[in-house]
Amino acid sequence: MISLTELRERIEQGAVSPDAAIAQSLAAIRAQDKAIGAFVHHDEGARAQTAGPLRGIAVGIKDNIDTADFPTEMGSQIYRGHRPRGDAPVVMALKRAGATIVGKTTTTAFAANDPTATLNPHNQAHTPGGSSSGSAAAVGGGMIPLALGTQTGGSVIRPASFCGTAAIKPSYRLLPTVGVKCFSWSLDTVGLFAASVRDVAAGLAAMTNRPELLVPSSVAAPRIGVVTQAFAGAPEAAGAEALQRAARAAAQAGATVRELAMPEIVAEAWRIHPVIQDFEAHQSFAWEYGQNYDAMPPLLRGRLDETKGATPKDYDAAVDVAARARAALAAVFDEVDALVTLSAPGAAPKGLSSTGDPRYNRLWTLMGVPCVNVPTLVADGGLPVGVTVVAPFGADARALAAAAFVEAALKRV
Amino acid sequence: MISLTELRERIEQGAVSPDAAIAQSLAAIRAQDKAIGAFVHHDEGARAQTAGPLRGIAVGIKDNIDTADFPTEMGSQIYRGHRPRGDAPVVMALKRAGATIVGKTTTTAFAANDPTATLNPHNQAHTPGGSSSGSAAAVGGGMIPLALGTQTGGSVIRPASFCGTAAIKPSYRLLPTVGVKCFSWSLDTVGLFAASVRDVAAGLAAMTNRPELLVPSSVAAPRIGVVTQAFAGAPEAAGAEALQRAARAAAQAGATVRELAMPEIVAEAWRIHPVIQDFEAHQSFAWEYGQNYDAMPPLLRGRLDETKGATPKDYDAAVDVAARARAALAAVFDEVDALVTLSAPGAAPKGLSSTGDPRYNRLWTLMGVPCVNVPTLVADGGLPVGVTVVAPFGADARALAAAAFVEAALKRV
Repeated sequence: MISLTELRERIEQGAVSPDAAIAQSLAAIRAQDKAIGAFVHHDEGARAQTAGPLRGIAVGIKDNIDTADFPTEMGSQIYRGHRPRGDAPVVMALKRAGATIVGKTTTTAFAANDPTATLNPHNQAHTPGGSSSGSAAAVGGGMIPLALGTQTGGSVIRPASFCGTAAIKPSYRLLPTVGVKCFSWSLDTVGLFAASVRDVAAGLAAMTNRPELLVPSSVAAPRIGVVTQAFAGAPEAAGAEALQRAARAAAQAGATVRELAMPEIVAEAWRIHPVIQDFEAHQSFAWEYGQNYDAMPPLLRGRLDETKGATPKDYDAAVDVAARARAALAAVFDEVDALVTLSAPGAAPKGLSSTGDPRYNRLWTLMGVPCVNVPTLVADGGLPVGVTVVAPFGADARALAAAAFVEAALKRV
Repeated sequence: MISLTELRERIEQGAVSPDAAIAQSLAAIRAQDKAIGAFVHHDEGARAQTAGPLRGIAVGIKDNIDTADFPTEMGSQIYRGHRPRGDAPVVMALKRAGATIVGKTTTTAFAANDPTATLNPHNQAHTPGGSSSGSAAAVGGGMIPLALGTQTGGSVIRPASFCGTAAIKPSYRLLPTVGVKCFSWSLDTVGLFAASVRDVAAGLAAMTNRPELLVPSSVAAPRIGVVTQAFAGAPEAAGAEALQRAARAAAQAGATVRELAMPEIVAEAWRIHPVIQDFEAHQSFAWEYGQNYDAMPPLLRGRLDETKGATPKDYDAAVDVAARARAALAAVFDEVDALVTLSAPGAAPKGLSSTGDPRYNRLWTLMGVPCVNVPTLVADGGLPVGVTVVAPFGADARALAAAAFVEAALKRV
C-alpha cells in the first residue's frame, strides 16, 4: 500500500515531486485496475496541486458522491451518465487541502447489497466487500493512498477489513453528507480508507482543518473494553482470532483490557437498526422505487418490497430505542477509553455473490460513534481481517489514537 | 385564499372534479402571476390524479427542491437550466398522496437573503418575505392551496406572516431534506404553506402518513407561554400588537396565558445560531463559492466572505450551546403546552431590497421545534402580520392544535 504520511514526507523533503506522486498512482491504476476493477472512471491527465497538506495525494471518490469533473452514477443504470452540477463538500474539502481527485471508485448500486464486479486485491477469487468496494480495493491494492467511502450499515469498516486497509467511519456528521446519494439520513456517514491509522488521521485532519485529529507521536496505553457483540451471533474462526489477537497485543503493550457486555438497550438498538435504515430508505429512494422500479438493483428493490408495510409508529419507536441506547453507550465509556470489536464475521467471502455481512458494524453506525478499522491478521488465502476500535461520539481523536496504539501493538507481536 | 380542506370536501362530495380544482388554480396563476411573479416555472397542462387524500390539490414547490419534471434553479444563474435526475422525497410524498405539482415557486438565491422579484400579493409595493418568497405569495395570493418552502433562519414563518398564510416549520427532520439544496444541515427544514392551520395539518398528515397530525374538531384550551424574545430586540408596533392580540384572544377563549422569560442558555442559543449556519454554509456552498465566486448572489457571498475565519472550535462551542439550550427549552414545556411568539418584527418591509428580518424565527429553527404561523391582524397598507405557535420537539400535533385554537380565538374577537 502507499502510505499517505510517508509519501507526504518524501514530497516535503523534495525526494519526490507532487506530480511524480500522482503519476505513481496513475501508473499503479494502469497496471492493476484491469484485473481488480476498482475504478468506474479515472483521469489519466490528473495533475498535482502546488499547495496544501494533501498535495501529491491521489484520491479516489466512491461513485455515490457528487463530482463535477466525473460522472456520478451511483452504481446504477438509472444514473448512467449522470453528471452533477457541482462537487460534494467532502470533495471540495479534499481539493482545498491540495489533494488530486484521480477517479471515481465502484459502489454497489445505491450503496446497498447488490455486488459490484470489483475483486479483492489480495485474492481475486473473493469479494473486496461493499458497498465501498472500489475505494477499499484501490487503497488495499496499493493503487492510491487515500479514498472516500460511505457507511450506512458497515460499508466502510467491513471492506477495509476485507482489503487490509485502515479506515475511519467518523462521528456522525463530522464530515457532511451533502452531495452524497442518501440511503438513510440518520445513518449515512462518509469515511476514509488509507494504509495506516496515522494515514487515515492525516487525511481526516486535513479535510476538516482539525489538527487535533492527528495521532501524537506517543500514545498513552488506553483502557480497552472488548465487545464480542454476542447479540449479533458468533463470528467465524478468523474473526474470533482477530479479536483475540488484537486484545492480547494491546494488553502486552500495556493497555488495560477486559471483556465488556453491552447494556440490553444497546443490543436492542442493534436489532432495530434495520427499521430506521429501511423506513428512511423508502423515502430516500422514493423516486427510484416509484418511477424506475424495473431498473432498481434487485437486492435493494427486494428489501424495499419487504419493508413496505413499516409504519411511522414502528420508526418512531426505533428512534426512541436508538436515543436511549446512545445514552447508555455514553455511560459505558466512563469505565474504558475505547472499545475493540469485530470488523466482520471473518475474511472476505469467496465469489462475488455477497459483499459480506455488516452485522458487527451496524450498531456503531446507529450510535454515531467513531469506528476505526485496524488490519489485524492475514487468514488463509492471503485474506486480511481487521478489528474495530470505537470511541465515544465526538471523540474521533481518541478513536484514532487508540487504534494507532493497537496497530503498533500488533506489529510488535 | 383557497382552503385545502374545503376544496377536498367539495371534491369528495362531487361538487367539483379533481381536474376542475387543478384548472381553477391554473386559471388563478394565469390571472395573477404576471403581476406577482410567484412562479419560476409552471405547467399549464397539469392534470389531477385520481386517488389519494390530496387529489385535486395544486401544489407549488420552492425552486431549491429537486423535481424531475421541472428545472430546479436554486434562484441562481449558477444552476440555470439545471434538471435533477429525480424528485426529492418530499415531492414524491406529495405525489403519492395524490397531489399535482403545478410549478416551481421563486426562492431567493440558495434560500439566502438576496431578494427575488416576487411581490407581496396584498400590497405590491412590499416584499412577500423570503427565502420561500414564491410559495408564500402563491398561497397568500389565492393561486394554490398548498406550497412547500424551506427554513434555515426564518424562511417559512416570516414570509407566511407577511403574506397572511398559515404555515408550519415542522420538527427538524419530520420531513426529509434529501434532494433539497443544503444551506445548513443542522437547520434546514422543509415547511408547508396553506390557507389555515387545519389546511396545513391536512397537508402534513397526508405527506407523512401521520393522521395524528390532523387537528381534532374540538381542541382543549392550552396553557400558553408568551415569549417576547427580548434578547432579539424590540419589535415594531404591528408586531407587538399582533402578539398582544393573539395572547388576549387566546385568554378570552379560555387558555391560560402568561408571559415567559427564556432561560439564559436559550438566549445564548439565539446568539450563536449564525455561527452554526455560516460554518455549515461554507461547506454546503464550497463548490459554488470556490468555483463560481463571481456568479454567487452578492449578499450570500458577502456573508461567506465575512465568516471565512470561523474555526471548528467556534462551531463546536456553538453546537454545545445549542444542545444545552434544547434541554433547557424542553424543561420550559413542563409548565406550558405551547409558546406564542413573534413571527416577524412587523409587517412586510416596503420595496424589494430586503426580505425582512428573521431574528424572531432563528432560535426556534435551531431548537428544532415545530413552529406554526397564525395570521393575526392586517396592518396599514393591507399587510398581514402573524404570530408563531411553538411546541416541544416532536409534538407537531400539539403545535398544530394549539395554533388552531389561537386561530379560532382570533376569529371570535
